[in-house]
Amino acid sequence: MDLKNRPDEWKIEQGFSGGQLPVLDQTGPEPRMIAPQGEFKKWKDEAAISAVGDLDQLFAEELDGWKGYVEWEKYPDKKAKAHKILTSQNFPPPPEFQMGPIPETNPVLEGIRWKMWHYAIGGALGTVPEDSWEIIVKEKHPDMLHLLQFPYNGEPPKRLVTAEPMTPNPLHFVRNHGGIPIIDSQKFELSLDGLVANPKTFTLKDLQDENKFPRIEKTVTIQCSGTRRVEQISLYAGEGDEMINAPWAEGAIGTARYVGVSLKKVIKACGGLVNGGKHFEFYGADTYFKKNQVMNYVVSVPWSKVRANEVILAWEMNGEPLPKIHGYPLRVVVMGYIGARSVKWLYRIKAIENPSRAPVQSQEYLYFNQQVGKHNQRMTDGIQIQEMPVSSAIMSPWTKQVVVHNGVIKCKGWAYSGGGRWPERVEVSTDGGQNWYPVPPENMSKKYKYAWRTWEIDIPCDVEGWIEVVCRCWDNSLNTQPLTVRSSWNWGLHVTSSAHRINIYSVNKTKPTTAKRLKEYEDRGVPFAPITNPTEWQIQSWDDYENYWKQHDPRDAENEYDSRDLED
Amino acid sequence: MDLKNRPDEWKIEQGFSGGQLPVLDQTGPEPRMIAPQGEFKKWKDEAAISAVGDLDQLFAEELDGWKGYVEWEKYPDKKAKAHKILTSQNFPPPPEFQMGPIPETNPVLEGIRWKMWHYAIGGALGTVPEDSWEIIVKEKHPDMLHLLQFPYNGEPPKRLVTAEPMTPNPLHFVRNHGGIPIIDSQKFELSLDGLVANPKTFTLKDLQDENKFPRIEKTVTIQCSGTRRVEQISLYAGEGDEMINAPWAEGAIGTARYVGVSLKKVIKACGGLVNGGKHFEFYGADTYFKKNQVMNYVVSVPWSKVRANEVILAWEMNGEPLPKIHGYPLRVVVMGYIGARSVKWLYRIKAIENPSRAPVQSQEYLYFNQQVGKHNQRMTDGIQIQEMPVSSAIMSPWTKQVVVHNGVIKCKGWAYSGGGRWPERVEVSTDGGQNWYPVPPENMSKKYKYAWRTWEIDIPCDVEGWIEVVCRCWDNSLNTQPLTVRSSWNWGLHVTSSAHRINIYSVNKTKPTTAKRLKEYEDRGVPFAPITNPTEWQIQSWDDYENYWKQHDPRDAENEYDSRDLED
Repeated sequence: MDLKNRPDEWKIEQGFSGGQLPVLDQTGPEPRMIAPQGEFKKWKDEAAISAVGDLDQLFAEELDGWKGYVEWEKYPDKKAKAHKILTSQNFPPPPEFQMGPIPETNPVLEGIRWKMWHYAIGGALGTVPEDSWEIIVKEKHPDMLHLLQFPYNGEPPKRLVTAEPMTPNPLHFVRNHGGIPIIDSQKFELSLDGLVANPKTFTLKDLQDENKFPRIEKTVTIQCSGTRRVEQISLYAGEGDEMINAPWAEGAIGTARYVGVSLKKVIKACGGLVNGGKHFEFYGADTYFKKNQVMNYVVSVPWSKVRANEVILAWEMNGEPLPKIHGYPLRVVVMGYIGARSVKWLYRIKAIENPSRAPVQSQEYLYFNQQVGKHNQRMTDGIQIQEMPVSSAIMSPWTKQVVVHNGVIKCKGWAYSGGGRWPERVEVSTDGGQNWYPVPPENMSKKYKYAWRTWEIDIPCDVEGWIEVVCRCWDNSLNTQPLTVRSSWNWGLHVTSSAHRINIYSVNKTKPTTAKRLKEYEDRGVPFAPITNPTEWQIQSWDDYENYWKQHDPRDAENEYDSRDLED
Repeated sequence: MDLKNRPDEWKIEQGFSGGQLPVLDQTGPEPRMIAPQGEFKKWKDEAAISAVGDLDQLFAEELDGWKGYVEWEKYPDKKAKAHKILTSQNFPPPPEFQMGPIPETNPVLEGIRWKMWHYAIGGALGTVPEDSWEIIVKEKHPDMLHLLQFPYNGEPPKRLVTAEPMTPNPLHFVRNHGGIPIIDSQKFELSLDGLVANPKTFTLKDLQDENKFPRIEKTVTIQCSGTRRVEQISLYAGEGDEMINAPWAEGAIGTARYVGVSLKKVIKACGGLVNGGKHFEFYGADTYFKKNQVMNYVVSVPWSKVRANEVILAWEMNGEPLPKIHGYPLRVVVMGYIGARSVKWLYRIKAIENPSRAPVQSQEYLYFNQQVGKHNQRMTDGIQIQEMPVSSAIMSPWTKQVVVHNGVIKCKGWAYSGGGRWPERVEVSTDGGQNWYPVPPENMSKKYKYAWRTWEIDIPCDVEGWIEVVCRCWDNSLNTQPLTVRSSWNWGLHVTSSAHRINIYSVNKTKPTTAKRLKEYEDRGVPFAPITNPTEWQIQSWDDYENYWKQHDPRDAENEYDSRDLED
């Protein structure tokens, strides 16, 4: 078959292969099609890379007993050398998975660029991707859905997300930004410096000494701002960053009981803030990459948050020492904030005057207005995401699922609000958001100031065919969710807090015609799904058919024959 | 990697592999997951098939000079034998393409079941799939998008659909329901029987004899009721029939100048109707299959349509004899009706009392209410589709395309209304249907009673990012289109007449920040598309960043440090 057109032209025209769509430039006298990026061409300046020096020596472990930790922030020269290595070669672009079908694999995405960057730097980073994966396999539940292998991003499947109001550690979602540093707790130290009266260093034992610091134990929900991103992606493609905007579903949220100390008490032990200190920069031992710069994972929170005792330095999660993948031996837990501020493998806190200029704070996790995109994006166009807004999600049924019921559909899910607010009411609609039923209070899990609530509801549903089930939450401040994904879609694909909508195929067995058809399927042993499979037998008798037409008007009105009409 | 969960679980949960979704049965005391149809298991009763007889003899060509034509309707016994063959074996289910990604191929779908049915019957049908494909390659434009190889369904790519207001024959869409009979026009005869005063037979020469029949020449748009079906599929899966509901885009419509005679004049030549005759059954020489029954392609139209001289028996298309694929030597053209009534390879017209009971009329091309679906579908639940409603489509830009413009976006497309109505006004919105601009009358092609109009418009557009461009038509009766696909979605996936909506990524070059960013891309020689590709360089200077924060409120309100607060 000889085709002049591209075999995938139809898919391109219909937006199924969006990555291959040419740009349509209408600014000239004639419209012009501009080809998208072509094949990746690798280049590498081996001489320049060799000239940088011996990688094992340059990028060695910083500390004994801290595997996979390279200190970057103290050594500008080391950073410059790493930068030189990364800019003396190129790396393949991130995979395009937003504008075409999602990959068939699990892990869905590999994170090949992050792996390659680690290998390129070498030294202590050289085996981090493999070491990390080993921990993941050991510590996480075998049923986790791996969205990104490295840095690891994974969430539990829907059937397990809300199976218990408190998320078991192996099922708690993970959104790592780098590899997993493996730290010997005996050799662990946390330093506190910057604009504090007395900079100090603390061992884990110091922090755990109840004579020095009162313990805090809190039930806290941590949520990634990427939760439910897949809904934004399904609508419109957005930012594809080096860090990979993973196509999270509804499981990038988890609830656990953390034990630790309030950061405020540690600040107090350092004599309080001085010289205009008002923000706290947290340093993670993991290595982070941004635009060919290499660094530690760094973000900050404001004093007001610390002052409210809403920042814990935690070593225990659900009664166990922190799992390695969750930041062992010490992590930050910022209650009611985006998960990205709850730094893992915390080794340093620096009091500073302004919010951190580190890229995770200044360039990422930004909430843009819809007018901002690749064509005009600036850091200052975004709101830095901190407190998470009210949101909710349906965990059962699943979208596109056929649900056979007796006029009542059972739904379950979660609801959450950040900033110390909590779900006060959850409402569910089976008609796309026209009418809402409240979840009975007794069907909602226990109320906490900083945690989600799981819920269940039976909703009356008469209609059949494709219906849209929607849930929304009202928090204790009476905030509620936007009704459509479009209304809060943003280029960074963050904070998908709109009412969660799923389409299900409602089959109401209380309807006699439906019950009869289902019985036909059952009697013949033919599965009802997928619904696209044709019904192979005659679906109505010809007697019924003829009867119908005897009892009703014919298909066409005014169809009487008169031979005089032949002459027109 | 040892995974307990299915590697595709995440995709199943998110509705990306809908065909593998289990049914959720909530009618019992506990919810139950019921597996969808499993792997296809072939069976075949060779003895039963052999017992039917010699296929070459049983299913021989009906007429000399008519290749690929088996007459079924006159021989109930032959039909019964073919049925026996088909029910003595099974055939694979149709491919599932609605609930997962569309196949990567062109032809998109092969029509393997239809091929297998032809091979199973054998005789004159044995080589029809191959003979037909040969004609397709010869007669159709090499750029046609092949949605279904057999029976052939193809449409022109968007760039060619409205390139001319009159569709060139090689680019006219084709929705065949069977193979292509290859008929020698010298040996062609049309018979007219049933409830007419004097049943007669006509050669092509008879019909073309202007002394016997006045000629009609008409510009007619023929449209498949499946046009734009892909939009319904993208929203919700629907009926998957043996005939395959092809995922048509906007090209299943075409306009040509036909020459022929009015059927009314031929009826007159037969002395008119008698004994309650009120409908006309058209017989096509192609072979059709439905639920293991084998038949000719048969549909009917009412007398009222014939009486209005809206039914032509045509032999010429755009100044040429009908192409083989379009029904050579003679076809029906029913003006303003669904294409399925315009029977190709017409060999018989039978006057009857009621609309045809043949399956294409009684069981297919039905327009259902949304409550009808696989769970309860009956033939009598649907309106038999005849006249096509008002509709329209955007041919440029394409959905998901990045459009760079100077504050004005150029769009073009088609508009059509069936039943002898015509597009009187076309309107386009760039804000999802809030505000509408009319296409200037001078930008619309010539008005015909039975044909579409092509159009072009320049629409002001200030906003950037993902915008929704929508078009709708008002016909001369002031009918217009439903605004959303959902509002007219139906199980048969027919008549996608809702306002056509495309999403484009608007880049307004009159905005200074945008012009600057585009120039950066141009200067660096980096393609702007796909937009998901990250911008690899720093997108804002740190000076600008610091300046911004000097001139604005800080991120967090009320963040003043007071050492007394350390005591809380």
